Amino acid sequence: MMMMSSDMIPPGYRFRPTDQQLINHYLLRKAIGLPIPWSILEKDLYGERANPWDVFSDVNDSAWEIVKDVNRVIYVFTKLSKVNAEKTRIARRAGCGTWDGQTTRKNIYNESKELIGFMKMFSFKVTKEGGSEDRDDHWIMHEYSLAGVCLQYELKYKEYVICKITRTCKANYFFFFFFFNHLQT
Amino acid sequence: MMMMSSDMIPPGYRFRPTDQQLINHYLLRKAIGLPIPWSILEKDLYGERANPWDVFSDVNDSAWEIVKDVNRVIYVFTKLSKVNAEKTRIARRAGCGTWDGQTTRKNIYNESKELIGFMKMFSFKVTKEGGSEDRDDHWIMHEYSLAGVCLQYELKYKEYVICKITRTCKANYFFFFFFFNHLQT
Repeated sequence: MMMMSSDMIPPGYRFRPTDQQLINHYLLRKAIGLPIPWSILEKDLYGERANPWDVFSDVNDSAWEIVKDVNRVIYVFTKLSKVNAEKTRIARRAGCGTWDGQTTRKNIYNESKELIGFMKMFSFKVTKEGGSEDRDDHWIMHEYSLAGVCLQYELKYKEYVICKITRTCKANYFFFFFFFNHLQT
Repeated sequence: MMMMSSDMIPPGYRFRPTDQQLINHYLLRKAIGLPIPWSILEKDLYGERANPWDVFSDVNDSAWEIVKDVNRVIYVFTKLSKVNAEKTRIARRAGCGTWDGQTTRKNIYNESKELIGFMKMFSFKVTKEGGSEDRDDHWIMHEYSLAGVCLQYELKYKEYVICKITRTCKANYFFFFFFFNHLQT
């Protein structure tokens, strides 16, 4: 499988993978240690300095895909770590806040109806005083992890997950609605 | 600009062009006679035998993109012709019916706010008795044509338009709602 560079993708094509494609073609290959068909950024999303706006401050605007006018979407690999060696809880603190997860997760199946992964949704919540409550962006993460039959492979890098990060700029959001309402009147 | 084959597109990429991309990278280049960055089918969508289900009967299922579970979408080039030499009306008859157009059209602009094209929507209406009223699919066309500054180029093939064809299978549609309602109860 060859690696491609971004200027080889014909105009009009966008990265809109299915859950199944994310697991089979990207995350599973990454965890096994195989080359992946398309370069995907790797970022540390957790830790003391990992405010999402800081994590992505070096990412060029053109790397984000614009969805429904107000959202910016990017896919990244990240590594999960446990809170401490004994516990099974995953460390979700990041900078001045935490990635707050929904309790339910979605199962992802392959074409033979076998479980291959999970998807969980998180949103970034500022928890520390003096944190950036006045920021005008809102951050959502969809985290894809391996499960079921995928765990039967010899996984060299099983700490990896793949995350779809969605950044909504509230200012843009309001502008969008203002503009929309303006058109209607 | 190189031509690519479909197995060179990395998994997860889908053809979801903007109106601007369709005009600038595909239709304008086709009309000028330049190579286009990605092969797009060419079909006769009009004429005595051009029932849409016949026109696309030789197209492999995998060439259609699945959108929102119930829709199949494909992009094609087609040539328009006039009803007769004196008239400006375009021939919209196709097989046992006609491509029935909405009266409004949408203007498409480039980044410098110059007009570059139009988009019009059509749906396929069976008009002849003994036509296939009992078919379980529904056909929609979004037709993109050149306009404004694009007409200043030397266009060798100005009869071309590019069409986004959406086929909805009513059977699938009902199945989808049945399934969805079933999940809710």
